[in-house]
Amino acid sequence: MGLPKTPALTVDCVIHDPDGRVLLIRRKNEPFKGAFALPGGFVDIGETVEAGCRREVREETGLEVAELTLVGVYSDPGRDPRGHTVSAAFLARLPAAMPPRAGDDAEAAEWVADWRGEALAFDHAQILEDAERLASLAAED
Amino acid sequence: MGLPKTPALTVDCVIHDPDGRVLLIRRKNEPFKGAFALPGGFVDIGETVEAGCRREVREETGLEVAELTLVGVYSDPGRDPRGHTVSAAFLARLPAAMPPRAGDDAEAAEWVADWRGEALAFDHAQILEDAERLASLAAED
Repeated sequence: MGLPKTPALTVDCVIHDPDGRVLLIRRKNEPFKGAFALPGGFVDIGETVEAGCRREVREETGLEVAELTLVGVYSDPGRDPRGHTVSAAFLARLPAAMPPRAGDDAEAAEWVADWRGEALAFDHAQILEDAERLASLAAED
Repeated sequence: MGLPKTPALTVDCVIHDPDGRVLLIRRKNEPFKGAFALPGGFVDIGETVEAGCRREVREETGLEVAELTLVGVYSDPGRDPRGHTVSAAFLARLPAAMPPRAGDDAEAAEWVADWRGEALAFDHAQILEDAERLASLAAED
């Protein structure tokens, strides 16, 4: 086949409830073990980024998200201490704040009202800021 | 290190001139050898997607693009016959229609007025449609 070696592809998902809280997980593994993070993970070969995003949310939080809006692509070579990963970040909204059930790489999963008061893994604080800007623009329409 | 194997990451760039023409290359190599395509290619480990996009445009057309706007992430597993590639597509605009100079993987590079009349490689017709929608939304602001 011989596709060139490129950065590893990941997805992250920002999920708001109607009160503006965000769904975060506590990371079970290094890097950033124990820190809050967005649900997400590596994209499998053969799945779209949207399918990978829904799968990771399901595996880590037990919740199903449907419509996804692209927030951005995050590709700083230093964003992940394991090596160069590039994340496609999506925004989803749930009609109600359903209780999550932590699974897979998530030690815990919970609705967080003030993420700015928490230490977040990777560049997830930046993704959350960008997602909030996008959500407020959409609300103006 | 052990990052999981994921789809290969590429970039593509839609470049409009002030008359609405788009900069396309003729592919020198398979797949889609001889077909028109957007300038683009594989992202190197250690570079951001934006840097990879500017580098590919420079290598294939000799032109320099500055500001980039994300159009979307294209990840259908069947979009590339070589294997699963995922492309971050960007929109750029040049202040004037400078003459391109084909290089690298490009057999030719030219400004095309009506891309809908051409057979395009990969899912580049879809990317061009999405980019035109984005550009017209931006023009309304």
